[in-house]
Amino acid sequence: MSERQIRLVIEYDGSGFSGWQAQAGPDGTEPTRTVQETIEKAIRDVTGERVRVLGAGRTDAGVSALGQVACFRTESTIPSERFAHALNSKLPHDVTVLSSDEAPPEFHPRRNAKLKLYRYVILNRPMRPAVDRARVAHVSGPLDVERMREAARSLLGTHDFASFTTAEAAREKDTTRTITRLDISRDGDRITFEVEGPGFLMHMVRTIVGSLVEVGRGKQEPGWIAGVLESRDRAAAGPTARPEGLVLVWVRYDE
Amino acid sequence: MSERQIRLVIEYDGSGFSGWQAQAGPDGTEPTRTVQETIEKAIRDVTGERVRVLGAGRTDAGVSALGQVACFRTESTIPSERFAHALNSKLPHDVTVLSSDEAPPEFHPRRNAKLKLYRYVILNRPMRPAVDRARVAHVSGPLDVERMREAARSLLGTHDFASFTTAEAAREKDTTRTITRLDISRDGDRITFEVEGPGFLMHMVRTIVGSLVEVGRGKQEPGWIAGVLESRDRAAAGPTARPEGLVLVWVRYDE
Repeated sequence: MSERQIRLVIEYDGSGFSGWQAQAGPDGTEPTRTVQETIEKAIRDVTGERVRVLGAGRTDAGVSALGQVACFRTESTIPSERFAHALNSKLPHDVTVLSSDEAPPEFHPRRNAKLKLYRYVILNRPMRPAVDRARVAHVSGPLDVERMREAARSLLGTHDFASFTTAEAAREKDTTRTITRLDISRDGDRITFEVEGPGFLMHMVRTIVGSLVEVGRGKQEPGWIAGVLESRDRAAAGPTARPEGLVLVWVRYDE
Repeated sequence: MSERQIRLVIEYDGSGFSGWQAQAGPDGTEPTRTVQETIEKAIRDVTGERVRVLGAGRTDAGVSALGQVACFRTESTIPSERFAHALNSKLPHDVTVLSSDEAPPEFHPRRNAKLKLYRYVILNRPMRPAVDRARVAHVSGPLDVERMREAARSLLGTHDFASFTTAEAAREKDTTRTITRLDISRDGDRITFEVEGPGFLMHMVRTIVGSLVEVGRGKQEPGWIAGVLESRDRAAAGPTARPEGLVLVWVRYDE
């Protein structure tokens, strides 16, 4: 049998997962339920093969996806397009494969990604959310969207984002990334941040949002963000915003 | 102490409740967790009083609310506006009181309601929802919104809606109701039904949606709905659409 690479587009509710892939916790223990392993198990149920699934974005615990892209190699004879339905029949209700097709052998879902869109939603009202509590963050005090937009401008383009990732990640690798779009809009009591770029550091979108919220609530001036960026120091930025507000919307490739 | 009536505006995620109020199941058993009793318990925790909470709409199991209105009588000295925060400190995370104020003694949240808006959302795509699975219904085959709109027109206005409620409810009471607005719109793979009127029968909105879906998928002609209405026979209508797509958005009163 010849080997093919299958590409999946996947939606999942992050609230029941400790992230896309298992990461050792602070005490060295492995969290128990990951999206990656859940999909690998469904592939094993369908094909009998033990495969490794590679994702385009390693979303954190509690972060959802509407269009994660992931790949695996198989020798099964199942037609590429049939994998979506076959896997859904084995997957739990908080993960759905939206589509499947064959990808070239050299295709890598993360390295070949041209653009990703992450969306972060804040419910900005006095009372905590009930209906949307697993997919919005809550800020009870007033937030000034205009101030946050002004602050966000200095993050556009290519920069060293060491201040906006974990101290550990900043020590270990190249922390230069590019943000091609960062839009902030309000619709009633919902504030939506849309952050677009080819790739992001660990916690980067959430730390950007957490820092912009400091500006939006008036604790920092809009110009403060440019200084945080220049400092290349995680301690200079605001807190990492909670994971439930974040969703990976889509990943784009050259076709 | 003089008695006051307190009015609450309440948001809740219906997925963890067997409805607003306990209804005996088919086997006579009482379901265990209701929104009404959850709020009554929080009031007891805050005031020490055992009260009955009256809701504007008795939502079914699995149905959510963004703006349910409910009332109770109290002799407590807590300022009316403080009840929202006080109750939220005792309520579980799937119920939030958005606001509280004092209502006149004769105010009745259901009988005085002038207008209610219910919204029903269908995710219309081949694959089942993961992120939104607790608050959208899923229809995998194509739905024609234009046909559903045409069918919906015959439901506008005041009619005997006996065909669109439970057979039991239709036998027991007056089944004349008024629909002032029934809008259907599509945004990508989401179809939203908005149904507005002063009051609705048990299962009425869900049976209307279930019947319109029969038209939307081409199983019935748009003109069929008018015949269902005239028949005053539950058996003539389509199936009752699943509860998770439905949400009570708001209730309006004369001010």
